Amino acid sequence: MSVYSPEARLRELGIELPTPPASAGAYVPSVRTGNLLVLAGTLPLRDGKIVCAGKVGKDVDIAAAAEGARICALNALANARVALGSLDAIKRVVMVQGYVNGIDGFSDSPKVLNGCSEFLVSVFGDTGKHARAAVSVNGLPLNAAVEVQITLEV
Amino acid sequence: MSVYSPEARLRELGIELPTPPASAGAYVPSVRTGNLLVLAGTLPLRDGKIVCAGKVGKDVDIAAAAEGARICALNALANARVALGSLDAIKRVVMVQGYVNGIDGFSDSPKVLNGCSEFLVSVFGDTGKHARAAVSVNGLPLNAAVEVQITLEV
Amino acid sequence: MSVYSPEARLRELGIELPTPPASAGAYVPSVRTGNLLVLAGTLPLRDGKIVCAGKVGKDVDIAAAAEGARICALNALANARVALGSLDAIKRVVMVQGYVNGIDGFSDSPKVLNGCSEFLVSVFGDTGKHARAAVSVNGLPLNAAVEVQITLEV
Repeated sequence: MSVYSPEARLRELGIELPTPPASAGAYVPSVRTGNLLVLAGTLPLRDGKIVCAGKVGKDVDIAAAAEGARICALNALANARVALGSLDAIKRVVMVQGYVNGIDGFSDSPKVLNGCSEFLVSVFGDTGKHARAAVSVNGLPLNAAVEVQITLEV
Repeated sequence: MSVYSPEARLRELGIELPTPPASAGAYVPSVRTGNLLVLAGTLPLRDGKIVCAGKVGKDVDIAAAAEGARICALNALANARVALGSLDAIKRVVMVQGYVNGIDGFSDSPKVLNGCSEFLVSVFGDTGKHARAAVSVNGLPLNAAVEVQITLEV
Repeated sequence: MSVYSPEARLRELGIELPTPPASAGAYVPSVRTGNLLVLAGTLPLRDGKIVCAGKVGKDVDIAAAAEGARICALNALANARVALGSLDAIKRVVMVQGYVNGIDGFSDSPKVLNGCSEFLVSVFGDTGKHARAAVSVNGLPLNAAVEVQITLEV
């Protein structure tokens, strides 16, 4: 019987995690408490630049924002790997808080966040199934279109 | 000495929990980690339809939104019962994150969320007293007027 | 070898914690679950009055809002001291959720929240380094300019 390995699965998917993003403020990328690893909010950053910026529903469509949410998840996993040494130490994705930089009245935050959620399940399998809350907010750091904050069990 | 039973209290109040709502995206209704049950965000859904929609402060008044927050809590408890078998397994309501779909500058999110908080205390008694954060956001899934995300100790 | 004491550090800094703020709704200031102390959201209240109100980016500038975030943290610590007897019982600041009452498109929530984060590190040292998520929302209770919600390990 083989043990499921998210690291092996990432390689199978041909995905390389990015360099962990620099913190956007006076905080740290993750904190371990008991069996929880609480990750800081992550943005759709690649090589230090926001690759999915602006208001969803005006500057950015839902498909592009969903891809942005996937990039947020990549950055979150990069932070988790630094903290844990390997994603194989993750027992469960517990919770995703998702924030979409939407136009006023934006009601499709779940479709945007699915870009993050489906990616997590593709990497972690059943262990990647998480609780979630998705909302639209009126602004995000660096004018990002989306931000996710993930809590893991290790 | 009798043990407090939220299930008995619900019957006493004549409240039947709804059928657990369908997930609005690629996530699950709850995740258990250690002694915590982290519930997904819930909306004022009844029989699959949003019963409290639109902007609070324009389309929806505070009393109606507070009733919407109570319905969110009903759906959260329905999810908890599925996960735990019985609400009697709940030791404490730990935290309520409340999101109101308010007009710009909406400052009465606490009054809206009280519809959720007072209901939880009516069902769980002292065990139902929770920490809370309430904010107004510019949009919610399915144009709901309110969303709550609850964390329980079991 | 001396043990680091946040209470001694507060005295050294000449900071007195305020009287714990009254709850703005039907909830409690904190809940202990396992080794976590989950604090309710706190506002820039002093002597029962909001001292940092309105929209950041219009009514309030970033420096003033960052000072508001520091006052939020003071109130959070006041709540923690009531729950724990002493801040010396705190092992780690785990997470700060920060909400800024920003104008539409407000992208500087990290600069605002740094007022809270830097204060926590000044009091707790390395133990004060926390994960964080910062967003701009369209409204906060009592028209506060900023709200923080802090989770501690004890």
